[in-house]
Amino acid sequence: MKKVSVGVDIGGTNTAIGVVDEAGRVIAKNSIPTPGHGDIEKYMDDLAAAIRKLLNSADEIFTVLGIGVGAPNGNYYQGTIEYAPNLSFKGVVPVVELLKKRFPELDYLALTNDANAAAIGEMIYGGAKGMKNFVMYTLGTGVGSGLVVNGDLVYGHDGFAGECGHTTLIPDGRLCGCGSKGHLEAYCSAPGMKRTAFELLAKYNASDSLLATKSFSELDSKAIYDAAEQGDKVALEVFELTGKYLGQGLADTVHHLSPEAIFLFGGPTAAGDYIFKPTKESMEEHLLPIFKDKIAILPSELDCGDAAIVGASALVYKEIEK
Amino acid sequence: MKKVSVGVDIGGTNTAIGVVDEAGRVIAKNSIPTPGHGDIEKYMDDLAAAIRKLLNSADEIFTVLGIGVGAPNGNYYQGTIEYAPNLSFKGVVPVVELLKKRFPELDYLALTNDANAAAIGEMIYGGAKGMKNFVMYTLGTGVGSGLVVNGDLVYGHDGFAGECGHTTLIPDGRLCGCGSKGHLEAYCSAPGMKRTAFELLAKYNASDSLLATKSFSELDSKAIYDAAEQGDKVALEVFELTGKYLGQGLADTVHHLSPEAIFLFGGPTAAGDYIFKPTKESMEEHLLPIFKDKIAILPSELDCGDAAIVGASALVYKEIEK
Repeated sequence: MKKVSVGVDIGGTNTAIGVVDEAGRVIAKNSIPTPGHGDIEKYMDDLAAAIRKLLNSADEIFTVLGIGVGAPNGNYYQGTIEYAPNLSFKGVVPVVELLKKRFPELDYLALTNDANAAAIGEMIYGGAKGMKNFVMYTLGTGVGSGLVVNGDLVYGHDGFAGECGHTTLIPDGRLCGCGSKGHLEAYCSAPGMKRTAFELLAKYNASDSLLATKSFSELDSKAIYDAAEQGDKVALEVFELTGKYLGQGLADTVHHLSPEAIFLFGGPTAAGDYIFKPTKESMEEHLLPIFKDKIAILPSELDCGDAAIVGASALVYKEIEK
Repeated sequence: MKKVSVGVDIGGTNTAIGVVDEAGRVIAKNSIPTPGHGDIEKYMDDLAAAIRKLLNSADEIFTVLGIGVGAPNGNYYQGTIEYAPNLSFKGVVPVVELLKKRFPELDYLALTNDANAAAIGEMIYGGAKGMKNFVMYTLGTGVGSGLVVNGDLVYGHDGFAGECGHTTLIPDGRLCGCGSKGHLEAYCSAPGMKRTAFELLAKYNASDSLLATKSFSELDSKAIYDAAEQGDKVALEVFELTGKYLGQGLADTVHHLSPEAIFLFGGPTAAGDYIFKPTKESMEEHLLPIFKDKIAILPSELDCGDAAIVGASALVYKEIEK
């Protein structure tokens, strides 16, 4: 029988579920709404039903190794989601315990946050196979990170390590979504790129820019990329600056952990050299001589669309390893 | 027989040697000059002779568990010192291999950099006993750091991890000794505090400050402390600002690793609350809500004078553990 693990990605609106084979391929997937009502028992019943339905829908019978869950503010040690601002569940939700009740036959159930799950996905199925020390940065609405040291994810003393999006790049800089100022996320997330674009439009009074016709609500990182492709100076400078900011942050991470490689994941990385080149240059500029020209910055090999469930499913293999 | 390990601290001018018991007490110590001539074989002969002499000088006969060495640019994986700017030995020096030739009877020989050795010392003998996730910052002429994750020191993929003194606090800020700009070390080392004092003297034209009578070459962190004790406004603000800078850097480290505690070691920490209080306040201000009021900032429990050899000797216990 084919061995599979189940990956669950709990987002603010939807919960995606995937059955993933040992090579990291999604065999079947589905999703249910993440409820706005906060009734956790009902939601877990729905989730369990959806998982069983998905497993039974395939033509073949699987050996199910376990279930991995990725969720915002996911605490690996406790198997809980804690005070997640974008979910309707209040306080501390014991997701793994509630799932275990519904799947008593499974030995391996685990939960962590989205970026940690992506890092484990990269390690189990992707470009970080065989690497013992690497870092994953996920660039999207926010900036997440997963740190791997000596082959294991860094969870810290409380299960919440790896929040590199909230390191400070610029003292008293831009307001971050978390309430602090100058954090990396406020510059290097997709909304951060938009903010940079608007700063540059204002700075240059650039009414001839292709970006000048979009409102603050409309502009996204895809539009900035399209404009850059057409040689738009403002758009090109957005990528230069985003790379400069990100490279500074990555250098801080290197000075902490000296990883073999840093993987970048998420929408903005589709811009390829526009973002990778200035990021690499800026990182190198900030590094101590002993680290220069040693650390690769690589695009994630996980499929952007499925990465969250694939990453979550990979958690199961790390549990089996232990 | 009493079990001991030998700690060796290779500095730019002197090499300190200590025989350390299982409680971290220095039973006997000695030192030899670190030569300016770069003849490594001769130096290793002298070092081996000094170690044997020290072991034989005591009234009792010891069971010697091993030798641990702390050195600038020490690479744990390779047992080498690599391109250390302040030592006369050029290129890559295989210290552990050369020491092993002179002590074939010892099973446990290891080397790392000074700050990593201090972190291991704190873990084996000091305030970090029983902690699995903590960080050590050493404040002195430079700023070093040692990171402990899941009970093990973080060496990274190349053996050089833990250079948090070279994270960037202020983009395009003060010139750092390494050639980059705005690094933590340029603000939070003892010379960094002096630079802050001189900036403030200039800013306030503070000829009435107790610090106004000292030249740039004369002023040190002890004098700043003494002036603060007498209520000198400039000196007090130096501590406020140093804490503000350091707290920002510590928050970056917390966002990476979520340690249980951060230990501070070195001359400037003797100022107690003058430095700990603003550091704590600044760190908290920069942290995500999930980390607030959770991470202790503690003074190292290692004796400042002997910490380097005590830390180095502790390496031996980590080797035995493996």
